[in-house]
Amino acid sequence: MENDAYQRLVQQFATIQDLNSAANTLDWYARTKAPKAAQPGLGSQIATLRRQAHELLVGPKSADDLAAAEAREPWEAANLREMRRQHRLATALPAEFVEAQALAASRAQLVWERARPEGDFTAFLPALKEFLGHVRDRARIQGQVLGLSPYDALLESHDPGRRNASITSMFGELETVLPGIVDRVRGGPKPAGPTGKKKRLKRVARRMMTMIGLPTTHARLDTSSHPFTAGRPEDIRITTRYSGAPGEALMAVLHECGHALYIAGLPAAWRQQPVGAARGMTAHESQSLLIEMLACRSRGFAVHYARLLRDEFGEEGAWDPDRLHAVLTHVQPGFMRVEADEVTYPLHIIIRYRCETAMLDGTLDPADLPDAFDDAMAALLGIRPGNPREGCLQDPHWTLVEGWAYFPTYALGALMAAQLAETMWAALPGLDGDLARGDFAPLAGWLRENVHSRGCFDPSSDALLEHATGRPLDTGAFLRHLERRYLPGRS
Amino acid sequence: MENDAYQRLVQQFATIQDLNSAANTLDWYARTKAPKAAQPGLGSQIATLRRQAHELLVGPKSADDLAAAEAREPWEAANLREMRRQHRLATALPAEFVEAQALAASRAQLVWERARPEGDFTAFLPALKEFLGHVRDRARIQGQVLGLSPYDALLESHDPGRRNASITSMFGELETVLPGIVDRVRGGPKPAGPTGKKKRLKRVARRMMTMIGLPTTHARLDTSSHPFTAGRPEDIRITTRYSGAPGEALMAVLHECGHALYIAGLPAAWRQQPVGAARGMTAHESQSLLIEMLACRSRGFAVHYARLLRDEFGEEGAWDPDRLHAVLTHVQPGFMRVEADEVTYPLHIIIRYRCETAMLDGTLDPADLPDAFDDAMAALLGIRPGNPREGCLQDPHWTLVEGWAYFPTYALGALMAAQLAETMWAALPGLDGDLARGDFAPLAGWLRENVHSRGCFDPSSDALLEHATGRPLDTGAFLRHLERRYLPGRS
Repeated sequence: MENDAYQRLVQQFATIQDLNSAANTLDWYARTKAPKAAQPGLGSQIATLRRQAHELLVGPKSADDLAAAEAREPWEAANLREMRRQHRLATALPAEFVEAQALAASRAQLVWERARPEGDFTAFLPALKEFLGHVRDRARIQGQVLGLSPYDALLESHDPGRRNASITSMFGELETVLPGIVDRVRGGPKPAGPTGKKKRLKRVARRMMTMIGLPTTHARLDTSSHPFTAGRPEDIRITTRYSGAPGEALMAVLHECGHALYIAGLPAAWRQQPVGAARGMTAHESQSLLIEMLACRSRGFAVHYARLLRDEFGEEGAWDPDRLHAVLTHVQPGFMRVEADEVTYPLHIIIRYRCETAMLDGTLDPADLPDAFDDAMAALLGIRPGNPREGCLQDPHWTLVEGWAYFPTYALGALMAAQLAETMWAALPGLDGDLARGDFAPLAGWLRENVHSRGCFDPSSDALLEHATGRPLDTGAFLRHLERRYLPGRS
Repeated sequence: MENDAYQRLVQQFATIQDLNSAANTLDWYARTKAPKAAQPGLGSQIATLRRQAHELLVGPKSADDLAAAEAREPWEAANLREMRRQHRLATALPAEFVEAQALAASRAQLVWERARPEGDFTAFLPALKEFLGHVRDRARIQGQVLGLSPYDALLESHDPGRRNASITSMFGELETVLPGIVDRVRGGPKPAGPTGKKKRLKRVARRMMTMIGLPTTHARLDTSSHPFTAGRPEDIRITTRYSGAPGEALMAVLHECGHALYIAGLPAAWRQQPVGAARGMTAHESQSLLIEMLACRSRGFAVHYARLLRDEFGEEGAWDPDRLHAVLTHVQPGFMRVEADEVTYPLHIIIRYRCETAMLDGTLDPADLPDAFDDAMAALLGIRPGNPREGCLQDPHWTLVEGWAYFPTYALGALMAAQLAETMWAALPGLDGDLARGDFAPLAGWLRENVHSRGCFDPSSDALLEHATGRPLDTGAFLRHLERRYLPGRS
């Protein structure tokens, strides 16, 4: 009887998964291939699929089955735990509230898109205020249901089990140490990276994907205005953009390959089930940053990277590994988060974290956001934006339903990447040589065994990390990594 | 109260539409862009979306609302009629039957795919027998519910209101007349059509799409193994293939443009509703054939076609309109339906129609299909396949759930195209000149007004045709068209 309930849930969550996968494919289509006129219709279809999935999840049968179901072994138990978690999160908000919030978000997004190019914060402020009202209500209601503070309740959507207190503590350590490192290693203007025509860059990008373990039988590469990764283990879709510096297009592909490798390595036996998913956004970002930052900006990989570029561009595009490595590890404070280097990036996140926690608890009036943002940037990065376009208006997150309490996962992902990398490099003594030869199999194998194949078996990213490295997340490995890479022999 | 029921139905059918549109987009993705490994997962997602749509349609609320709903004006009344029609068709089969049939179909398809290259009918026969059993059961059950003969019941899925008796009568006229025309006009081996590299052919194809009224803001062009059209008015997706003769790729695009123009011209105010859909497959095929056969194989269009080719290929690819027209209207019996010309094509359909009606009513044992097929081809086309690969194994239709009683709509579409064209040419005296200049606006305008914008307002394709031409479908206009084009001055 109980087991019937579990089997019914397995069926139901597989259907929910299919609906969400379909919505993700439509979203990918809208962002890469769809004719311009198709966008509103696709938006409506995606909303319908999400609503159907939500209705199945919160439907009357789910609660009874979730109460009655029993698991026979640890993975089933973890699956049931994740089912219950998803159900709890979904039922914590009335449906009308979800709809009103989604509408406020799309209004705010439209206003933001128009306000950003001019840096017109005054035009954006009413929409921000309205949407913030919804976010505060949501955080309060979900917090009451889950027994959590408002910000912790929002974090549950992105990194289950993560608490604001531990973020405050880790970010406190980072903001104490990082500005000093930046001062010691900052360079002049960034040296120009590799250049080349789009068609040839694409060829290099495809070779990189195969190198990392994502062959064309299982993965695509397309163009979009912001790089992203979507899809399922056997249907990976990476995008990049060629509008910026050509080398950036390739680094974006490497970053997305980290996300893609995670998706590809999720436990095959649990593909349609909650326990078969990735362990939240901190873990996801750790995988992209581990590939992009730890592995592919290393001195070892620069050797292979130079070889890839020479293969495609010949001597005209010849790069020596030292020059490439200098480009890849150049440090320089700048206004834009998405263009930031590895050392200044966490400081960009801390600026946003300070602003959003203060707006959420009411200590920062949204009207004062530009000043608060600029003050924080001046304090942490030593530069002051001349215009909200380069300040608080640069990111879309605060107009997205899932955009609040999301920023921290970028910096936590960097910490987690470094912590995993430290353990992995110790376990694989030949790794630098492997990367210099473009052999990613040992790295991918270690990550698959210790991270990817565990899906959501562990209840939190900290538990996953403890399994892989022996301890929950801290700043130690990240700071040691920065010291090794940026301050060799200086300390 | 009654109006509430109607409004609930409007909401529900919009959701069903979104689910089906999403399934169609996934199907397009699977056939054009998806990595090879993605296919099974996409199949599962598509099946889930279709099942969800079906469950909404047959759900307990629908029947009550459909009984209670009242329409306030003629389009609402037509919409309600179409809702009831879809509901009746969907509820005419038990869900378990639908599932068993779908499984038998996918088994049969797999067997067919393996048997066809070798022409191994013996390998295919058991799967055909099993699936035919399902088809006969389905036709009988649906026939009982709808009060129709088995074949008429199947026709309801493709061309509502179409009855087998009228098909038999029209096909009887065609098979009396067409072989004689073929004998009089058949040419030697087909002259070589235009050639050119894929990249340049694509550019010509894109210009053709814009010419017909399908600009890139609303329509895409991709490659697939069989040409098809998918999408919605503002999100049109045409595919073609470049594996055959290069000119065939362009003619396929023109054919698909006819389907696409129909989709693009459907009534905008009813976009999410049953009455906003196309009026069945005979009507759909009439639109593709009107563009491809009637308009784009005309002497007038050959002038513009030659210009398009010269623009892209310069003098090396120069074609004069007369030579192009000779290629486009070459008549020669051949084994393969998809390669057939305008005159022999309906005979290919009649061969299949004879075989499938006889298998359905039990007068033809599937074991005797190859002989029956070859005999019919010998009688109608004067050629005899040497191998089932060129005979009864060439089409996938008899392994598809919606493949039976589908063939007739191809030939009926040709009749309907000619009937519409005859009225249109009479209404637009400058049309030949317009086509010679590549100006499709008058043609597209006439079709939009008289066909596309009516959606499913008319209860059948005959009613639609009667509205546009003053009479239901017959063979007259088609035979007159063949005489004008192929036998000028000979009669």
